[in-house]
Amino acid sequence: MTTTLITGGTVVSATGRTPADVLIDGERIVAVLTPGSQLLGTDLAASVDTVVDATGKYVIPGGIDAHTHMQLPFGGTNASDTFETGTRAAAWGGTTTIVDFAVQRYGERVEDGLARWHDLAAGQCAVDYGFHQIVGGVDEHSLKTLPTLVDEGITSFKLFMAYPGVFYSDDAQVLKAMQVSADTGMLTMMHAENGPVIDVLAEQLVAQCKTDPYYHGIARVWQAEEEATHRAIMLSDITGAPLYVVHVSAKQAVEQLAWARDKGKNVFGETCPQYLYLSLEEQLGASSDEWGRFEGAKWVCSTPLRSRAEGHQDHMWRALRTNDLQMVSTDHCPFCMKDQKELGRGDFRAIPNGIGSIEHRLDLMYQGVVTGEISLERWVELTSTTPARMFGMYGRKGVIQPGADADVVVYDPNGHTSIGIDKTHHMNMDHSAWEGFEIDGHVDTVLSRGKVIVDDGRYLGAKGDGRFVKRGLSQYLL
Amino acid sequence: MTTTLITGGTVVSATGRTPADVLIDGERIVAVLTPGSQLLGTDLAASVDTVVDATGKYVIPGGIDAHTHMQLPFGGTNASDTFETGTRAAAWGGTTTIVDFAVQRYGERVEDGLARWHDLAAGQCAVDYGFHQIVGGVDEHSLKTLPTLVDEGITSFKLFMAYPGVFYSDDAQVLKAMQVSADTGMLTMMHAENGPVIDVLAEQLVAQCKTDPYYHGIARVWQAEEEATHRAIMLSDITGAPLYVVHVSAKQAVEQLAWARDKGKNVFGETCPQYLYLSLEEQLGASSDEWGRFEGAKWVCSTPLRSRAEGHQDHMWRALRTNDLQMVSTDHCPFCMKDQKELGRGDFRAIPNGIGSIEHRLDLMYQGVVTGEISLERWVELTSTTPARMFGMYGRKGVIQPGADADVVVYDPNGHTSIGIDKTHHMNMDHSAWEGFEIDGHVDTVLSRGKVIVDDGRYLGAKGDGRFVKRGLSQYLL
Amino acid sequence: MTTTLITGGTVVSATGRTPADVLIDGERIVAVLTPGSQLLGTDLAASVDTVVDATGKYVIPGGIDAHTHMQLPFGGTNASDTFETGTRAAAWGGTTTIVDFAVQRYGERVEDGLARWHDLAAGQCAVDYGFHQIVGGVDEHSLKTLPTLVDEGITSFKLFMAYPGVFYSDDAQVLKAMQVSADTGMLTMMHAENGPVIDVLAEQLVAQCKTDPYYHGIARVWQAEEEATHRAIMLSDITGAPLYVVHVSAKQAVEQLAWARDKGKNVFGETCPQYLYLSLEEQLGASSDEWGRFEGAKWVCSTPLRSRAEGHQDHMWRALRTNDLQMVSTDHCPFCMKDQKELGRGDFRAIPNGIGSIEHRLDLMYQGVVTGEISLERWVELTSTTPARMFGMYGRKGVIQPGADADVVVYDPNGHTSIGIDKTHHMNMDHSAWEGFEIDGHVDTVLSRGKVIVDDGRYLGAKGDGRFVKRGLSQYLL
Amino acid sequence: MTTTLITGGTVVSATGRTPADVLIDGERIVAVLTPGSQLLGTDLAASVDTVVDATGKYVIPGGIDAHTHMQLPFGGTNASDTFETGTRAAAWGGTTTIVDFAVQRYGERVEDGLARWHDLAAGQCAVDYGFHQIVGGVDEHSLKTLPTLVDEGITSFKLFMAYPGVFYSDDAQVLKAMQVSADTGMLTMMHAENGPVIDVLAEQLVAQCKTDPYYHGIARVWQAEEEATHRAIMLSDITGAPLYVVHVSAKQAVEQLAWARDKGKNVFGETCPQYLYLSLEEQLGASSDEWGRFEGAKWVCSTPLRSRAEGHQDHMWRALRTNDLQMVSTDHCPFCMKDQKELGRGDFRAIPNGIGSIEHRLDLMYQGVVTGEISLERWVELTSTTPARMFGMYGRKGVIQPGADADVVVYDPNGHTSIGIDKTHHMNMDHSAWEGFEIDGHVDTVLSRGKVIVDDGRYLGAKGDGRFVKRGLSQYLL
Repeated sequence: MTTTLITGGTVVSATGRTPADVLIDGERIVAVLTPGSQLLGTDLAASVDTVVDATGKYVIPGGIDAHTHMQLPFGGTNASDTFETGTRAAAWGGTTTIVDFAVQRYGERVEDGLARWHDLAAGQCAVDYGFHQIVGGVDEHSLKTLPTLVDEGITSFKLFMAYPGVFYSDDAQVLKAMQVSADTGMLTMMHAENGPVIDVLAEQLVAQCKTDPYYHGIARVWQAEEEATHRAIMLSDITGAPLYVVHVSAKQAVEQLAWARDKGKNVFGETCPQYLYLSLEEQLGASSDEWGRFEGAKWVCSTPLRSRAEGHQDHMWRALRTNDLQMVSTDHCPFCMKDQKELGRGDFRAIPNGIGSIEHRLDLMYQGVVTGEISLERWVELTSTTPARMFGMYGRKGVIQPGADADVVVYDPNGHTSIGIDKTHHMNMDHSAWEGFEIDGHVDTVLSRGKVIVDDGRYLGAKGDGRFVKRGLSQYLL
Repeated sequence: MTTTLITGGTVVSATGRTPADVLIDGERIVAVLTPGSQLLGTDLAASVDTVVDATGKYVIPGGIDAHTHMQLPFGGTNASDTFETGTRAAAWGGTTTIVDFAVQRYGERVEDGLARWHDLAAGQCAVDYGFHQIVGGVDEHSLKTLPTLVDEGITSFKLFMAYPGVFYSDDAQVLKAMQVSADTGMLTMMHAENGPVIDVLAEQLVAQCKTDPYYHGIARVWQAEEEATHRAIMLSDITGAPLYVVHVSAKQAVEQLAWARDKGKNVFGETCPQYLYLSLEEQLGASSDEWGRFEGAKWVCSTPLRSRAEGHQDHMWRALRTNDLQMVSTDHCPFCMKDQKELGRGDFRAIPNGIGSIEHRLDLMYQGVVTGEISLERWVELTSTTPARMFGMYGRKGVIQPGADADVVVYDPNGHTSIGIDKTHHMNMDHSAWEGFEIDGHVDTVLSRGKVIVDDGRYLGAKGDGRFVKRGLSQYLL
Repeated sequence: MTTTLITGGTVVSATGRTPADVLIDGERIVAVLTPGSQLLGTDLAASVDTVVDATGKYVIPGGIDAHTHMQLPFGGTNASDTFETGTRAAAWGGTTTIVDFAVQRYGERVEDGLARWHDLAAGQCAVDYGFHQIVGGVDEHSLKTLPTLVDEGITSFKLFMAYPGVFYSDDAQVLKAMQVSADTGMLTMMHAENGPVIDVLAEQLVAQCKTDPYYHGIARVWQAEEEATHRAIMLSDITGAPLYVVHVSAKQAVEQLAWARDKGKNVFGETCPQYLYLSLEEQLGASSDEWGRFEGAKWVCSTPLRSRAEGHQDHMWRALRTNDLQMVSTDHCPFCMKDQKELGRGDFRAIPNGIGSIEHRLDLMYQGVVTGEISLERWVELTSTTPARMFGMYGRKGVIQPGADADVVVYDPNGHTSIGIDKTHHMNMDHSAWEGFEIDGHVDTVLSRGKVIVDDGRYLGAKGDGRFVKRGLSQYLL
Repeated sequence: MTTTLITGGTVVSATGRTPADVLIDGERIVAVLTPGSQLLGTDLAASVDTVVDATGKYVIPGGIDAHTHMQLPFGGTNASDTFETGTRAAAWGGTTTIVDFAVQRYGERVEDGLARWHDLAAGQCAVDYGFHQIVGGVDEHSLKTLPTLVDEGITSFKLFMAYPGVFYSDDAQVLKAMQVSADTGMLTMMHAENGPVIDVLAEQLVAQCKTDPYYHGIARVWQAEEEATHRAIMLSDITGAPLYVVHVSAKQAVEQLAWARDKGKNVFGETCPQYLYLSLEEQLGASSDEWGRFEGAKWVCSTPLRSRAEGHQDHMWRALRTNDLQMVSTDHCPFCMKDQKELGRGDFRAIPNGIGSIEHRLDLMYQGVVTGEISLERWVELTSTTPARMFGMYGRKGVIQPGADADVVVYDPNGHTSIGIDKTHHMNMDHSAWEGFEIDGHVDTVLSRGKVIVDDGRYLGAKGDGRFVKRGLSQYLL
């Protein structure tokens, strides 16, 4: 087995930072040591196969993106990143584990959906991957099957209070699925928007010829998110199910989460970079230009971008500081403008929902460290440590410690990253939602289970490097 | 220098646990390694001077008690533990660092108070110690002097909204001191009770011949704590000072802290074991018995024990889970019944305020793990990691990692500890506030900067082992 | 036209009380005067046809019960009071106006439902009556028809978030109906319970053989009421519709209303005497006795009786004082035990939901004055003045002033009323939900539009005395 | 005795409006009647001495201004309105009752202060007047004396948490006075600002040469008001005293009141026209102009004008709608620019605090009806009915009903009022705080106890018309 020593850097954890070397033997970290490479007389640097010089840089656990949708069928098309292209982009950005969503729809069997996703991913991935299970059809069979997934390493499932006729579960279905969650300890993940209400509002807008991309955000009022969040909390309270609300974007939804958490409920929430940086007002601007008022389509995602004037973005940052939100994922769900987003010209409802960010999450969040929104430690916690704990991977992932998978990123705080379709961009998209963003830091080196897969601007990994991660139950519950 | 290997145990941090060996060289941890004592061909166990077998046990960072009062002059007497006896008891209980309070009173100079405390502690302590500065007289001189303490490693000071005529600061004084806190980054610690109001109520009770110890708790109504907590929060909001509220015992005070924290303010709170386990009702019982109605005096402390019927104790546990309270300290301030507590026979106001707990904090909190109130990781976070971060010692203290002081406790979850004056009791008191408590765990071995000071029921340390810790600014602020 | 003088009493309004005489000419009050019957030299008492001596008694506006269900078809049977029997019982109890619910169900036309209810009531009533419109089927036709009801004096409609398959509207339907409410000013009344969730819980209880009446309350968890209340508030916020939540029984639902009202929203709530006086615990007692565990069926209503241990009843009284709840109605919906409630032996879900209280509302609420829960003025406000304002009848109803209908009750605070099936009981039921209640007051005399219909224990009215009241829009909105 | 008939108008009460005539006999209202002046055959209009034609106009109970400071000694000068000039201005503006503040200072006897104010007012007033008692020195004597004031018709007293060294009470004093309030039912009125904190901030501003009037508002941060409000609420909670917070201007203070009221506490609040209409930003403008940066002094009052950007003014209006604030008073405390306000040139702390508004309160609040902020009924409730109930005068004052004092205003909604020093202005001031305000309504006729004192732009009253009102205990408590 190969041995590697990462030396001279500052190891950052969720609670602090310290100068330390990291010794890797094969796929695992075997020691974290005082810097200087001497141990009881042994010159480690001289003894190992490879030395990675991290002098002046941060050594952090590889990023974990717990919310991605590779190849997701949606709105008559498929998310444009395959497991191959998407996970490679992840690697470029310092993310060494993703948790994607296997899909079951109404009328299908959960085990079939899961098997299909295993097929899609196996042998394709650049980094390790796990699955949550989407349950689009809560019925007798899926309720019986869900508990069996725990032994297969699928310990969380996602329900939708939006998208009637597609993924939607009504309250009775949510209740029954949450009872399974409470009984098994599986985490209930929730897309919390009142879909039936949104669909009425969207239909009324279209009837008024308000069809531009911008109206996507107008239809998806914050009240629909706040309401569904509250409802999910109360259903969780009835059943005892732990609840994880995905892609929170409305400050009022955060207030509901904070309220529940103050009462000691196992209620959690993630937000995404788009809800921290982008806004409805910008989308309005992008909906009125040379693309024939359609450029705003690149930012059509659900939950939608929110109004900056109403203060949602600032509130999301604050909630990350106060731990009312615990994680940042991407909800990576890329679609090209051509042939995909364009399906919704003339009717925003037909625009496939999604933004591609998997490559940029670590960088975008690091920029929050630079601007003082979050601390360096919180950066690691939000992007790696808590995702690992929340989704039952901690110990193997999410931390630099002996026994852990050697998923390590060397991050240079003196580096620079320019984001743009002609610059840093490895996702399979014909545009970037983050065009023009400049980051005061850089992912220098990425190790996945001991193998250097990105280094100094070169991709050294291979398709199939990534393996399926069997996850345990959440390690984050109160 | 001596080398030590702690082997076979489970290292527990604030975020998780993992089987790992800990290698110590002299006073510092130099490596955390995969268990089995092999490293690049070297048999570590064979190479070190000492091997501590931690098989089946938890290996945790030594406890940090950030609120103690050795030898405190109070009510005409002095707290009965000297730095020698108190820190030795701390060591027995797995606490390897204390932060005590140097005292400045009205009319005195801060630097004199601090010097006096340095004198009291130097060469006496069994474990490392730092100081907060009590400012009992906010005046031009103390305001000018406080910033100079930062370089001396005193990065927090404490004010009192209670005890008029003794330590009390009025709101104008609090404001001015908080301005210093905001300017320097020093943490403002607050005894948050409305003292003037309490004193009126106490006087009225005594006038009604309600003089038993129990009335101490009746006089110190929860509203006085809630109110002062809110006031301190708003003064902190005006000035921008970070605020740390000590010995929180009323659930309504916690609600105020939670409210402030949800708004993103740098407001923190500690509670103490007595507010988790003991109650006003029990004190009432102990105020009506063979001690001539006076046994309740052993539980006279401020803030006081609260009513269990009102649910304060349950709320404190919940707040520890939700992180609305971040730490557990003891407020160790012991007084003997004889000659000390007895001063208040016939007038509860004359009972010296304080409970001795320094020896039992880790055990009492571990019992919360056993009963399911908190997780194992949260136990370490509340008693060691967060205290280190909050008070600027993290890296050296509060974590098992290379470079850290080798303050390590081996805790046996299969051990047992019986607390009582004739059992486990090393504090200089003639009674125990915790008589009869049984703990399903045991402090087996304690290392302080690499030296084994407690092992297998023997005290191996010496007076003067402990050194002064120069602390940095808080590493916990948002 | 007949002239009447009510003399010697204390006229009570929502804001105060004053000794005054009330002069009635025909159906209307024409003057309120200083007592003593002298006016510019005219001896009024000598000039009028009838003098009612109210010495030592309260003279109050006739009660308005804004929530009754005469002859309601429910669960395969009909509410046991007809408009004739129910309004006569109302008159006995000092209620001179009711607002009943015309019913439209899924697939029916609103105008047909309304016509049917007009037919049922016309010529039958002892006191005046108006209608709200139940919309059990929100569809294109009902949405178009609702605005036309305003001119017919129907200015409020009721939706159900409970009873799927019977009256239930889903969120899309609620939204559309609320848009009509916002556009027209009609008040949206809401049965706020999450029916789909309750039905799952009820089914699971029955599957566990938990079929006694008591389990009705167990199935209808407070979370289902709280959640639906919050949801209704947010839908009202999206649309701008004024919202009136009926039969609030859970303290957490009140907290939601208070939260919305503090934000300045037009959100209102009523409670009913059963939620003030009766409890789930008593129902449990009544579910385990000589009726073969079935006596609790008499208290099966929805929302259900709540736990006294959880403090709901006290909270309802408090909310009446703080005006977080604005009114007390009965939700009068009587069913006999025999042949009706008995339908649910062996399955609580088949018990017709409802309690009969129309006769006792004024008395039961007056008892709250006696026990100090509410003031005398608040009693009048809750039972008459606010109902009149809320539902667009104020000026004609709800106040003693010139121009108002002479609906007047003379209430004796020194009288006494014993409630029971063999005592005061004029409702068409074979039992009383209020058996054994004793009231320290008595309805002495009742005038409806100038006619004395109850006096000194005799009923002097006639079928058909009552007329339909065309209501205007709410006079209570912010 | 003279008889008067006010005919043809719309009588407005706190709960509604109705066309009605009002018959007055001597000083009292003797009847409210259906319009048309016929009663049992008597032609009233022909029978009375005087007929006031109110056709097309509102007939409302005379305004009650419960917070005025005639001739108040403050800052080395005296408020510029005497009881004569101030109450005459009140009459011009439709206010027929004032409650002024008798002053006791530290070291004085309460009874002496009260006697002095009786002397100042007796025989001077144009309208009726009562007194609250300011207690600037809570000591044994004042605590003993306060209860004796109840029989003299003084049923409320005011404490100051601001103005150390002048009127300030510390928390111990507040507690003791509130105990008297709880025991006697007297209402505790509170100036809720943290004076010691404000004084430090003001001193620091002056030390930085920030001395313009505008800095008055900068020094008096909203946190100082919020904090004191919370503190007053908790002290009221400890003692059981009913609490009335005067001149609330910060939205965060309202949030504290709302919080307390939701819990069912007897906590009340008033605001003043200046906090609804004027702002800190305007004061900044007026502090930088031809008056040598001093014009802003005209708006120096305490609590201060608040920032419009922070939304305080909108929040005050909302709180008036939601009844989180119950009343609008003026805090009339006029000072001329010349010789008075000018004392503070070069040091805003020396500017006498106060604004003169007594003449314009009814008009300014009516403008809120015109702009849709409040309803017509709420206007009457806020300016007359609730003040009467709150301060124990209801029945005699605050309502149009038989037995009440004939204090009546005929208000013309089609009239117009221009406010300005050269227009409508009868206060003894050399400027108007309300210069340029235009009101879409007009006070046409004012009766005080049956006597027409203002009519059609003429003042018909006389010095000494007004009499002392002995007030009872509050009629507004829960």
